[in-house]
Amino acid sequence: MRETLAEWRPAIDEAIADIVPREIDAEYLESFFGEPTYEYDPEGIQRALADPLWELLDRGGKRWRAVLFLVFVEGFGEDPAEYLPYACIPEILHNGTIIVDDVEDEASIRRGEPALHHLYGQDIALNAGNAMYFLPLKIVTENPAGVSAEQRLAAYEMLMDELNRTHLGQGMDIRWHNQGEVHVTAEQYLEMCACKTGCLGRIVARLAAIITDQSAEIEEAVARYAELTAVAFQIGDDILDVENSLGRAGDFGKEFGNDVREGKKTLLVIHALEESAPKTAARLSEILGADENTDEEVLEALSILEEAGSIEYARDRALELAARAREELEAVEFDDETDRKLREFTEFVIERDV
Amino acid sequence: MRETLAEWRPAIDEAIADIVPREIDAEYLESFFGEPTYEYDPEGIQRALADPLWELLDRGGKRWRAVLFLVFVEGFGEDPAEYLPYACIPEILHNGTIIVDDVEDEASIRRGEPALHHLYGQDIALNAGNAMYFLPLKIVTENPAGVSAEQRLAAYEMLMDELNRTHLGQGMDIRWHNQGEVHVTAEQYLEMCACKTGCLGRIVARLAAIITDQSAEIEEAVARYAELTAVAFQIGDDILDVENSLGRAGDFGKEFGNDVREGKKTLLVIHALEESAPKTAARLSEILGADENTDEEVLEALSILEEAGSIEYARDRALELAARAREELEAVEFDDETDRKLREFTEFVIERDV
Repeated sequence: MRETLAEWRPAIDEAIADIVPREIDAEYLESFFGEPTYEYDPEGIQRALADPLWELLDRGGKRWRAVLFLVFVEGFGEDPAEYLPYACIPEILHNGTIIVDDVEDEASIRRGEPALHHLYGQDIALNAGNAMYFLPLKIVTENPAGVSAEQRLAAYEMLMDELNRTHLGQGMDIRWHNQGEVHVTAEQYLEMCACKTGCLGRIVARLAAIITDQSAEIEEAVARYAELTAVAFQIGDDILDVENSLGRAGDFGKEFGNDVREGKKTLLVIHALEESAPKTAARLSEILGADENTDEEVLEALSILEEAGSIEYARDRALELAARAREELEAVEFDDETDRKLREFTEFVIERDV
Repeated sequence: MRETLAEWRPAIDEAIADIVPREIDAEYLESFFGEPTYEYDPEGIQRALADPLWELLDRGGKRWRAVLFLVFVEGFGEDPAEYLPYACIPEILHNGTIIVDDVEDEASIRRGEPALHHLYGQDIALNAGNAMYFLPLKIVTENPAGVSAEQRLAAYEMLMDELNRTHLGQGMDIRWHNQGEVHVTAEQYLEMCACKTGCLGRIVARLAAIITDQSAEIEEAVARYAELTAVAFQIGDDILDVENSLGRAGDFGKEFGNDVREGKKTLLVIHALEESAPKTAARLSEILGADENTDEEVLEALSILEEAGSIEYARDRALELAARAREELEAVEFDDETDRKLREFTEFVIERDV
């Protein structure tokens, strides 16, 4: 999968630049957004939209959502190069959510540099992030691969479905870590991940299926594959935050013990609250619910998670989800090469170290 | 128009409550968002989504976007009561932009009470505002009036078109008031209004035309009517901010001299910069470009606008736009009653005093 990622990256960035060029001019604005009634300000839109978008993209990111889309397209027997603009849809959406999430979380660092709202101001960053929710959806109207009206409508209905559930997931997540006292079940946590992270994965898979005209059964199987993998990925993220914070790994590019400081109800936390002695569980709740934590308190919370065996528990759950994701592939009958890439991908999301 | 607004309001709020009920339960979540993979948290979604939405709606707002939609539908010979869910689309979108704008502007007051991010926290408010961008778009999929697939696709393509331009307009506006030195032409200002405010008006008009299956010519004529009216409305807003700040009218529910403090390049400012003596213009630029202003400086800027005749100039432009909006109606041949309501509406948006 790593080779596939590296191989596609330049072409993906070129396709994104066709949607939002690095240099904005009046000609581009007219062709993409339509004729102005009066007069656009290309320089203003350069600073308000293209600069923040490319600042974030140039900092990194593996473009795995775009690559996963292309792997599906190829697996469905089509030439991925023809579908590059559609591959940008989940990628631009994802980067938009990053900008908005950072404003919501009041994050200071993103990909090792200042979060975008620190660089451009909260207003510019937020508007750019929100614009990135709608920019890619215009690709379906532009219809670069010449798909039928029926497929375009199905794509829009799917996108609205998934983008609505994304906001449900984000809403649950925020609500839980704002509210110290709330009781969250493991099932609710998995639903939150399925909505917040999974829906973007489902968009990748379903869009590839819709645009290449697959059956509803195939679309649903790849959607489940992507959702299961994304939930495993999210749990992997939570594990990494704890492991890196415990000093076992290198630089994570985030602040130390971020999730604990935010009071996040991760699967590790839910497990530790259930498995620890009442007094220990109460102490964990107290640290997570506090407005501010000292470094010592954060370390104390991390140790409670470690001692409850919550890291191993979460890893087992993630591996189990990844295994179920691979099972979903059996219904689809991809060629061996696609099958290998997709299987590798479910390992990559859990075993990555950054 | 005032009677029409009052008459429809309860039915509109009921229709919004069918989309996002005041009390969220698992049954609603399953029916609107689909079956969960694991388990929703209705209480979390209540606090993260329904509470902020209804908090804002219950504070007021005239629901004129929804009512304008219904007036169009009736004018197109259909029963407006059948199309109530669609009327909620621009209304929920508009209220979503209010929440997001207030975060972007770091506003403290909205409709006379604390802005939503002060009440719920920035993360909840922002996620609720963004959710309100996608919730109403699901109505097109739900298809309550049983329109054709072709119309639904046209509705989605139109919505993506307009929501993209909304973000262009907002981007230009923010960029201009963040950057003291920037030169903005009257044409660019009008474009910004046409994008930022006009596009939501265009959504109202085009959605009514698409859903009732009007010709492209009719759709374009009502879209121009709505855009012109919205631009006139925006200029009216800018005039009100200056007039109320100069103490000529009552309580505006906003901070005093808001636009000057934000450094907004309104049509009044653009006019005053062109018409004032170079030294006075430079002083106006200086005040608008400063990070902070004293009350005296704000009053000084307002006086420069007043003395340059910028209030009269802006009012003349707004009246001219409203007159052109009424001209657009001639191509449509509405019945007399609809015509009267739509003409009244172009007066209402300029002559309102709050």
